Amino acid sequence: MERLLIANRGEIAVRIIRAARELGMETVLVASEPDAGSYAASLADEVRVVGPAPAAKSYLDGAAVLAAADASACDALHPGYGFLSENARFARSVVAAGITWVGPSPDAIELMGNKSRARQAAQDAGVPTLPGSDGALDPEADAIPLARAIGYPLVVKASAGGGGRGIRLVTDESDLLQTIDVARAEAQAAFGDPAVYLEQFVHRARHVEVQILGDGERVIHLGDRDCSLQRRQQKIIEEAPAPRLPDAVRQTIWASSMELGRQCGYSGLGTIEFLYDPEREQAAFIEMNTRLQVEHPVTEMVTGLDLVREQLLVASTGKLRLQQEDIAFRGHAFEFRINAEDPSQGFMPSPGTLARLDWPGGPGVRVDSGVVAGSAVAPFYDSLLAKLVVWDQSRPEAIERSARALDEVRIEGVKTTLALLSTVLRRPEVRDVTHHSKFIESTPDLLGADA
Amino acid sequence: MERLLIANRGEIAVRIIRAARELGMETVLVASEPDAGSYAASLADEVRVVGPAPAAKSYLDGAAVLAAADASACDALHPGYGFLSENARFARSVVAAGITWVGPSPDAIELMGNKSRARQAAQDAGVPTLPGSDGALDPEADAIPLARAIGYPLVVKASAGGGGRGIRLVTDESDLLQTIDVARAEAQAAFGDPAVYLEQFVHRARHVEVQILGDGERVIHLGDRDCSLQRRQQKIIEEAPAPRLPDAVRQTIWASSMELGRQCGYSGLGTIEFLYDPEREQAAFIEMNTRLQVEHPVTEMVTGLDLVREQLLVASTGKLRLQQEDIAFRGHAFEFRINAEDPSQGFMPSPGTLARLDWPGGPGVRVDSGVVAGSAVAPFYDSLLAKLVVWDQSRPEAIERSARALDEVRIEGVKTTLALLSTVLRRPEVRDVTHHSKFIESTPDLLGADA
Repeated sequence: MERLLIANRGEIAVRIIRAARELGMETVLVASEPDAGSYAASLADEVRVVGPAPAAKSYLDGAAVLAAADASACDALHPGYGFLSENARFARSVVAAGITWVGPSPDAIELMGNKSRARQAAQDAGVPTLPGSDGALDPEADAIPLARAIGYPLVVKASAGGGGRGIRLVTDESDLLQTIDVARAEAQAAFGDPAVYLEQFVHRARHVEVQILGDGERVIHLGDRDCSLQRRQQKIIEEAPAPRLPDAVRQTIWASSMELGRQCGYSGLGTIEFLYDPEREQAAFIEMNTRLQVEHPVTEMVTGLDLVREQLLVASTGKLRLQQEDIAFRGHAFEFRINAEDPSQGFMPSPGTLARLDWPGGPGVRVDSGVVAGSAVAPFYDSLLAKLVVWDQSRPEAIERSARALDEVRIEGVKTTLALLSTVLRRPEVRDVTHHSKFIESTPDLLGADA
Repeated sequence: MERLLIANRGEIAVRIIRAARELGMETVLVASEPDAGSYAASLADEVRVVGPAPAAKSYLDGAAVLAAADASACDALHPGYGFLSENARFARSVVAAGITWVGPSPDAIELMGNKSRARQAAQDAGVPTLPGSDGALDPEADAIPLARAIGYPLVVKASAGGGGRGIRLVTDESDLLQTIDVARAEAQAAFGDPAVYLEQFVHRARHVEVQILGDGERVIHLGDRDCSLQRRQQKIIEEAPAPRLPDAVRQTIWASSMELGRQCGYSGLGTIEFLYDPEREQAAFIEMNTRLQVEHPVTEMVTGLDLVREQLLVASTGKLRLQQEDIAFRGHAFEFRINAEDPSQGFMPSPGTLARLDWPGGPGVRVDSGVVAGSAVAPFYDSLLAKLVVWDQSRPEAIERSARALDEVRIEGVKTTLALLSTVLRRPEVRDVTHHSKFIESTPDLLGADA
């Protein structure tokens, strides 16, 4: 691998360029027309404009991206996260073109992309799952006895969904059949596939996940993360390791995540997501993400590894250079997603030009930004400006350092989520780890705070 | 300690404010008139302007600084580095005013401030020293037999010098007596003390140093650093750990540095500096610095410790909370001092206003800056703008990452030493560790490069 096509934008494109450059690889960046002058574009060795905004006409246009890889003589392609990163068909076309796909096999992507099949694969590998239907729900069968066996409340999930999309809650039997019908129609409309499945609902659960890295034969884990602090299913603060997780639970999710990876011949980075129920002290499989995760830096901070470097090396050599015993954990890390959104307007995207952008510094502070002062923030894409990542020796110290670092950020020209991040970080529920994945939405004064 | 006076400016003032804030302390910053609007001033809880530029009328005016501490009700004072940090008389006045001095005892400062007495103390503690005079040279005695016993070339050093100041080389006996006379006159003029001493000269030596931390009773070490890359006795690139240092040498300098600290009841952070002769594989004492070192971040990167935090905690509690076995080293770190200097004008200071300031980011990259975009760089002080600190798992990887990070820096409005830093980093001598403390000055194409 000497010349890498980066089929993404923003902070993750910058992140991949950095890792590739440190390995001596040349980088070619795919860009939409409004992104042709982006910060990522200024860092890449070459930029290929593949189409206009919105993403459907550029970053999601697999044929155009592949043509750019071919025209720029790239021998490898990194899809980042989002966009084409979990598109098995696109991955197959990359492999068929003789270009190294930086990610797991298309078969693994496809298997995990179908959430009811993934659930079955997890069960087969001994990963704990919640009570639910075996595979997709048979639309002809009677769902009522099955739902009674699972218990209420339960959720109806689209097999082709994921990432929090395509989920409906059912609290009472009287709503079950109608909700299934509505969910099937929505799934057909959103994903082109009406299949749904049932799963028990967990109250006040935390979102915990395990990072694995494999080479198709061997699989190791790089520890866990907690991503419970979410707004509308979007993570906004993540941390590693997951706090207040009983050691037995941790060992179970580590071991079973590796086994799931082994059973599907997993290569590269993957994340197995769990719901953790602190009352019962039980974790259960949600889904597997077959790509680099937005929150991967918190794992880097506690392991000292460069995950994108390892990802590129596995793709390049076909071999994992690390053994499980090479992985040691030190300290605690938080990641804060700084989004260009207007809290006073219901967190609407806030495009504009960054008139000022001062990042914090000092020990334990890392910034992964997709912008610099003067950058234009376009309205066409997700609103993530940058990730502030903070490490310290312990979780309480990392909280103090994070509060200090968040206070130092100065952004002018767009509205941001900084005040929300600061307010959430300082909540006693977060310090005491009594929060859960609906904490922000169920605490109205948080969303209004400092707006 | 609840309210800390910071008697310094620039990046180190910012660094101390950060550590104090994370510990919940309030900060009061001493500022000169031109620094009243500095970045450090914007971060402090309170700013006390103590006088105009130059430093002699503000940062070096001990009475004014002490009056500011009193007027702002501070119960502790951190001197940073430079300025009043190694002024035993000032330290005594702080202690006498009932204010906690964040540093070693005034006696320890005084002892180590006299370089010939420090040399004697080092010998007493078993720290290896170079052949030289026992204490200051008796001006009445015959220096010639002593110099013959030491061997040529040798150096005549001012007892009150240090930090590379007050040193003269003698290559031949015919120059000895006259050089001593000149050196005594210079020392009298520069330091108010004519005392000098003799020491053997080491060719192509590397500058290696050991970081210690004590509480007056116990002393631990935090590993070593190499600071051989210097220009005019000023370090410009430092790293930790010291590369290509035989294990026996490392153990010797660690153990004897701790012993020196114990023998002088050392409290707080201190650095014992050594000349390392790679040919003979021998290290020898140069001097001890009794304060926080500019290059302390490289030690932080490989130990995970916050040295300023530990310094504040030792001063506050009187006790070291760390044991030697708590200290573990991981990976390799470099620090690059980015100075506002004009390489094309012999590295003259380059004052101005920072029209653009984009720092690098991503894994392993830390920035300790005293400025933000828009800051004015005044001509009155040293030219250090910021320190770029880069960590990676190994020295070769840290070099690649550093090269990447240096390339990402964008500074407009002043001239800087960035090109020199990049050029030096990429030299084979640096990669192979065949460089030495005169490497930059003895390699003329480096100083002219990219000027």
